[in-house]
Amino acid sequence: VSDVVTAVYEIHGDGAHERAKAIAVEQSHELPTQFAPKHSLVSLAHVVDVVESAGGPATATIEFPVELAGGELTQLLVMLFGNVSLQRGVRLVEIDVPAALATAVGGGTRLGVDGVRQVLGAPERPLLATALKPVGLSSRELADMAHELALGGIDLIKDDQGVNNQHWSPFAERVPLVADAVRRANEKTGRTSLYLPTVSGPHLDEHARLAGEAGVGGALVMPGIDGFSAPLRVAAALGRDAIVLQHPSFLGGFTADDSHGIAPELLFGRISRLVGADVVVFPNSGGRFGLTEAQCRAIAAGATGEFAGLRPALPAPGGGMTVEKVPAMLEQYGRDVVQLIGGDLHRDGDVRGASERFRAAALA
Amino acid sequence: VSDVVTAVYEIHGDGAHERAKAIAVEQSHELPTQFAPKHSLVSLAHVVDVVESAGGPATATIEFPVELAGGELTQLLVMLFGNVSLQRGVRLVEIDVPAALATAVGGGTRLGVDGVRQVLGAPERPLLATALKPVGLSSRELADMAHELALGGIDLIKDDQGVNNQHWSPFAERVPLVADAVRRANEKTGRTSLYLPTVSGPHLDEHARLAGEAGVGGALVMPGIDGFSAPLRVAAALGRDAIVLQHPSFLGGFTADDSHGIAPELLFGRISRLVGADVVVFPNSGGRFGLTEAQCRAIAAGATGEFAGLRPALPAPGGGMTVEKVPAMLEQYGRDVVQLIGGDLHRDGDVRGASERFRAAALA
Repeated sequence: VSDVVTAVYEIHGDGAHERAKAIAVEQSHELPTQFAPKHSLVSLAHVVDVVESAGGPATATIEFPVELAGGELTQLLVMLFGNVSLQRGVRLVEIDVPAALATAVGGGTRLGVDGVRQVLGAPERPLLATALKPVGLSSRELADMAHELALGGIDLIKDDQGVNNQHWSPFAERVPLVADAVRRANEKTGRTSLYLPTVSGPHLDEHARLAGEAGVGGALVMPGIDGFSAPLRVAAALGRDAIVLQHPSFLGGFTADDSHGIAPELLFGRISRLVGADVVVFPNSGGRFGLTEAQCRAIAAGATGEFAGLRPALPAPGGGMTVEKVPAMLEQYGRDVVQLIGGDLHRDGDVRGASERFRAAALA
Repeated sequence: VSDVVTAVYEIHGDGAHERAKAIAVEQSHELPTQFAPKHSLVSLAHVVDVVESAGGPATATIEFPVELAGGELTQLLVMLFGNVSLQRGVRLVEIDVPAALATAVGGGTRLGVDGVRQVLGAPERPLLATALKPVGLSSRELADMAHELALGGIDLIKDDQGVNNQHWSPFAERVPLVADAVRRANEKTGRTSLYLPTVSGPHLDEHARLAGEAGVGGALVMPGIDGFSAPLRVAAALGRDAIVLQHPSFLGGFTADDSHGIAPELLFGRISRLVGADVVVFPNSGGRFGLTEAQCRAIAAGATGEFAGLRPALPAPGGGMTVEKVPAMLEQYGRDVVQLIGGDLHRDGDVRGASERFRAAALA
């Protein structure tokens, strides 16, 4: 049984050995070690090794006493990358966490791949998702759109992350209408489509309660905006079968450069599972954002591979995906994936027909 | 009366005009405009202008209908930079917000420069702050340390951001002990030192309540970890005179590179005021982090200058500051500043004596 959390940092530039020691101190004591009382050294982090590489960054492995996380996901993140996020040329690229700590900080992903598949009654096939948009439509219009999308065979119909409580479709009006529209479609199709509203903002707890009463299938949650406790807090309010779809809004500061921040395969892989995501939305290669195909493959591996005894989560590559690209996405991600297509379903004004084509392509 | 939110983005690389249009769509409709129903166009953002610059980034000004923020700070941030945070080469450098929206999203900074000075009974002089550290000490040891620091004349004695609820000093044990130790010191000195505990994590609301009962002077809050609603939520629980000290933990993804993210003077200036900070901690130039002197001057200007009718906040440059550097910090920031010195006060094992020297230097 391990009693340490291990983190690997890439260090770009000179002086990797000294900088690794400085990171260990910064992220634990934040005090020059010669000034610390001897008995406090039990809480100091240590450099395990530093591997230098010609022409690339050095790789430093640091061990943290597990007690530093205090059994809280939030303090675990403060410890791994809080202050050092502000330093240039330092990139968090890998973590390992004892299973007991992963349990203590909330247990991470609740449903995971198998649980989401069970709720949807879809044991093997790729899953389909889309967003209700644009903001500016009325609650009624969004509900009608959701009805058509459900009739067309979309599994997860989520709010756009930019739709929450604006006057065009206030949360308390929109969420019951859309949930009901999806339910009516399910009665016609005999399938299970689910509505996942945005749950965010100062009224997070009240909105989670309203969403639960409306009988939604889960929620879109944004830890970059509402904090890293938000997904499990919303999930607990929604109940046992609720799907947590994590949206990457405002998380991009960490991933938009290769020499600092957090490696995307870690942020959208292991960290997202600790945070409680069942479905992890991230920007796919070949869309409107900058990740490479290799990074996206690594994200999928991080979302599904062995880690701290946590359940695997479903990668949901999005951001400019089209029905035409579905075969390539299947090729890249296999079947344990949520295929997320937004705007392209609106191309010819018939979202139901487009959804049927999307489904046919994904199930081919 | 303006009914738009204005944002300025630097765009690095080619194709600035097209990319500016794409940002306006991404951050509002997230749907190709030709697919959007005509009546929904009322919620679309627009490019006002794009100024190209030889050898530097282009500057794009975009206007968003004020209703897109839905009266929520969180949706305002989603709108300004949510998805586009994931794009390389795009940097949010300036925002302007109508005063009515700033009020609607929570009213921002509550006490501000004047309010903090009034609570501390220090109408003009520079203010002094430090952190209780290292993690690993007992609650009793941290309380004794706080007592000495208060006797030595430190105004704001905060928890280290890495100290929250670990077994060495559990929150419910530590916070009343430290608050009491600071109170006892105040009775001896006749001055007002205040204790600001870390309020963070899954028990945020309960901890805020406990802290209020213990009679603390405010809290250290980390919006990068606990979400951007957390500061005002904690402040409301603590009461009217509570000081919100914002810590930059996990916010560094946005500032550690010059070609994307959010300009530090905006993040630690206007945005921190919207979020509700009275005191904004940021990494000073010449310490352990990478900001330049010019950036730090701009942060101080952003924290205190005219913006949306909001109160000015106190800049608190930290991260490797020493008593020796106090004159230079006074030169750089003037008197409306919280001078934050951590480890250096522990140099010779006499934090009271070091605090007295710190105070003498700052009040010289």
